[in-house]
Amino acid sequence: MFRFKLTLEYEGTTFVGWQRQDGLASVQGMLEESFLDFLGEPTTVWGSGRTDAGVHATGQVAHVEISKNYTPFAIQGAINKRLRNVPISVLAVEEVAPDFHARFSATSRSYEYKILNQRPAPALDRNRLWWVIRPLSVDAMGEAASYLIGHHDFSSFRGSQCQASSPVKTLDELIVERNGKLILIKARAQSFLHHQVRNIVGTLKKVGDGTWSSKKVKEILEAQDRRCAGPTAPACGLYLTEIRF
Amino acid sequence: MFRFKLTLEYEGTTFVGWQRQDGLASVQGMLEESFLDFLGEPTTVWGSGRTDAGVHATGQVAHVEISKNYTPFAIQGAINKRLRNVPISVLAVEEVAPDFHARFSATSRSYEYKILNQRPAPALDRNRLWWVIRPLSVDAMGEAASYLIGHHDFSSFRGSQCQASSPVKTLDELIVERNGKLILIKARAQSFLHHQVRNIVGTLKKVGDGTWSSKKVKEILEAQDRRCAGPTAPACGLYLTEIRF
Repeated sequence: MFRFKLTLEYEGTTFVGWQRQDGLASVQGMLEESFLDFLGEPTTVWGSGRTDAGVHATGQVAHVEISKNYTPFAIQGAINKRLRNVPISVLAVEEVAPDFHARFSATSRSYEYKILNQRPAPALDRNRLWWVIRPLSVDAMGEAASYLIGHHDFSSFRGSQCQASSPVKTLDELIVERNGKLILIKARAQSFLHHQVRNIVGTLKKVGDGTWSSKKVKEILEAQDRRCAGPTAPACGLYLTEIRF
Repeated sequence: MFRFKLTLEYEGTTFVGWQRQDGLASVQGMLEESFLDFLGEPTTVWGSGRTDAGVHATGQVAHVEISKNYTPFAIQGAINKRLRNVPISVLAVEEVAPDFHARFSATSRSYEYKILNQRPAPALDRNRLWWVIRPLSVDAMGEAASYLIGHHDFSSFRGSQCQASSPVKTLDELIVERNGKLILIKARAQSFLHHQVRNIVGTLKKVGDGTWSSKKVKEILEAQDRRCAGPTAPACGLYLTEIRF
């Protein structure tokens, strides 16, 4: 058997998310259908992690194990040809060692969250960012973010359907940047709880618009209670950008 | 009567172009319908120029003349509310002098053309750029572009349906830049012939991929014959970015 690593870009808007679901359009399902059509045999596409419905990726990673030793170039061409009418693209394919696993070998995952902070609605990027009208203070959001970096119990930012065995995670990076009307929030960790990034963004937004002080986020973290934090930010602003191994 | 300048963003994919056409979705038509609904009377929305079907804008400018003295803030809110489900957004409104005319007062128009130069298809920006697989040399394209800057007869780059009285135009700026896999071509002139930017891009692409030498573009320009130049680049890569007055 030969193992290949796939680097993937997708537009999440029209998918129920990464994970295969019978009768529904998922990213994993589309990829597996393409491999089935290409190889003539069922092939599991293992992702580094699931993304929710509406979440995009510019650097999702998956692996497949196949019985024929195709070149990475041939695999990329064959799969992309079959995805021609679907907003998924295989950006790169490389052969990897038999012990490589997209999920278990990953040492970090990076996400970016985009907020458009202006009064008029976006025309070009409607499904690609969170449109927030109230002016946001990036300085206040950055200060609040600093309380979340490091090794913590993130129960306050954990989605109710989270399947992780522990709410304790290490957030290696959480950066808030402004670029004109666009606010970019970058988060990196070995792994995240379900909805962790979106719940953090929903909380930082409430700091940015002045509802909460930056220091309040420290209290929210320490409360270890999901009801204390802000709402889950919309999926459409979130991008899975990089998996490191 | 009161005159207002509108700055507009739109996603051109679903429109037949800027210009109003009976029974079809145009940018001008959508705006005029919104003004009719808001003011209760027909209002012409005058654009700085037409954009073709599929062409996007981040800085199109138009003006309207209306009988009631609404504030710019109120006009922006009222029109954007009516455009909620349409990929057009009024980015700014300001009151202008009665002699301001979006088309005739404009001193320059700026366009950007985006090429994605990589083997895999784009997933996120399918309708927003021209996907070109063959590797392009930005240096060769930049050298070719230098022959086009200035005051010339641009007949070789003129669309067959062009209504301009003369093929002579002054191209003030034509820049070719690479940013990773993305190639950006920026063009600025007081005005352009129909399809001029897209015909220039289609020609520069043939230089970039090695089909033609950079110097060949000088010959093409001097031939003053549309049949000598390259094909019209796809509309989806073109953005009208700025109108100066």
